[in-house]
Amino acid sequence: MHLWYNRGMAGYHFYHTIHVRYADLDTQWHVTNSHYLTFLDEARLGYLLHLGLFDGRSFLDLPWIVASVSVNFLAPIEPGQDVKVGVRITRLGHKSMHFDMQIEDLLNEAAIATSETVMVAYDYRKQQSIPISDEWRKVISSFEKILPLIE
Amino acid sequence: MHLWYNRGMAGYHFYHTIHVRYADLDTQWHVTNSHYLTFLDEARLGYLLHLGLFDGRSFLDLPWIVASVSVNFLAPIEPGQDVKVGVRITRLGHKSMHFDMQIEDLLNEAAIATSETVMVAYDYRKQQSIPISDEWRKVISSFEKILPLIE
Amino acid sequence: MHLWYNRGMAGYHFYHTIHVRYADLDTQWHVTNSHYLTFLDEARLGYLLHLGLFDGRSFLDLPWIVASVSVNFLAPIEPGQDVKVGVRITRLGHKSMHFDMQIEDLLNEAAIATSETVMVAYDYRKQQSIPISDEWRKVISSFEKILPLIE
Amino acid sequence: MHLWYNRGMAGYHFYHTIHVRYADLDTQWHVTNSHYLTFLDEARLGYLLHLGLFDGRSFLDLPWIVASVSVNFLAPIEPGQDVKVGVRITRLGHKSMHFDMQIEDLLNEAAIATSETVMVAYDYRKQQSIPISDEWRKVISSFEKILPLIE
Repeated sequence: MHLWYNRGMAGYHFYHTIHVRYADLDTQWHVTNSHYLTFLDEARLGYLLHLGLFDGRSFLDLPWIVASVSVNFLAPIEPGQDVKVGVRITRLGHKSMHFDMQIEDLLNEAAIATSETVMVAYDYRKQQSIPISDEWRKVISSFEKILPLIE
Repeated sequence: MHLWYNRGMAGYHFYHTIHVRYADLDTQWHVTNSHYLTFLDEARLGYLLHLGLFDGRSFLDLPWIVASVSVNFLAPIEPGQDVKVGVRITRLGHKSMHFDMQIEDLLNEAAIATSETVMVAYDYRKQQSIPISDEWRKVISSFEKILPLIE
Repeated sequence: MHLWYNRGMAGYHFYHTIHVRYADLDTQWHVTNSHYLTFLDEARLGYLLHLGLFDGRSFLDLPWIVASVSVNFLAPIEPGQDVKVGVRITRLGHKSMHFDMQIEDLLNEAAIATSETVMVAYDYRKQQSIPISDEWRKVISSFEKILPLIE
Repeated sequence: MHLWYNRGMAGYHFYHTIHVRYADLDTQWHVTNSHYLTFLDEARLGYLLHLGLFDGRSFLDLPWIVASVSVNFLAPIEPGQDVKVGVRITRLGHKSMHFDMQIEDLLNEAAIATSETVMVAYDYRKQQSIPISDEWRKVISSFEKILPLIE
């Protein structure tokens, strides 16, 4: 069985801090919406590094690609505000990983945006999707306390 | 009645061309996922300019803000590839506009990504949501052939 | 006399830390050259905030504009490397400020890039250059130990 | 002799058009200074593609790196304004290429910024500088009418 999922709300075991830059702001003087995705990318990569699944350097060996992303914008990010991103994987399929992420104010932890992102295991050299490796499945499920749907 | 919607699939009455840049590429040598949102932003702004609803300059008077966005990534955008973005509004609520957008290859028109984006009418000076103005409702509904749900 | 300058090499009284992001990398897997300017912008803004000369929010009241910039690239910035930027003003003219900046490795302080940037005092609402205000001249010259050329 | 240079002002034999995006603007409502470098990068790459010296895809085989860049900002780029970038190589050294570039308004050709950029021939796989190849020297000198300093 390839469908593993997170039973119950567990909160985030990993947070990644983002220092907001002047260059993240747009003509309306808040962080521009596309940079929310930049923050989510950064946080997901930080999560992988934290779990020891990527060396941070061999980018053509990074075995995933974004399949879909959705973001709900709850509050603007103002100049001078820093944020943190909670990251967790809630479901592991045969080839797909479901990320649940939340951008929060670094200081008061108010929710700024929520996101669901689906990543697919991918071989960039062969340009095709691949099954999630046993190593990734073992490390992620252990970290997230994700269990197989039916043993 | 504030709920107006597009009856039936009508295709796109507006397309915006995007010339892909080297700076849109990431370490995996395709357009990075956050820049898909940059392309969607650019196309939505082009749509507004096309409809004569924004002068392209008075950014604090641009009366909308992104509430939510979802993107399905169907194919990578490779170096040297240019794209166009189809933009249409499928629904006008009291304060919200639903955009249906599609990124396509400029030459063969193959679908690269689809997106649903909800914009909310917003006053940046007062920092609060506002009803969609009669002018916007009139111009958009005329362009999109959107009719009130119940006359 | 409007020409004030820094007599002798004084080192930097201000450093600004930059956390390098995945989105700063390009297809060659190092920080792309244009983002060095992003880092310099960020550091100059941090300098202004540190000196209490800008509130970080009223961007149309930020009274300067970039006149020229030069950068010497001494070493690449690799994935996972963080940097700090030393900022100092070496000369105050009637309307211009000369910045000497250096990007250094955050840990070993090795020089990564050096830059000279000339900023001109500017009124964005009137869209014209203006003399440096007495307040700015006083605060900057005090912080940098810059003296008038001829007393 | 490795020092070849352009005798006399020859104008630009190559121009690259840049469609300015909303995302190029900053909080002061003009194109942000770091994106001038993005435009110069894009134009230099367009020049290489035009001369048939790069396939636009094998980025680790792109044999150059930026050594230094200087930009003089003559005028802001406003929303809605498109630009073109004149590119020429004025000097070929043993390992270095001197680029003289100018950003101009697309319509009235008014100068917006001038830049001198030094690129160094570079092997990204070995991470070291290399001599400019005979092929590059031949193609560039032919295109630019650059002659050896001493025949």
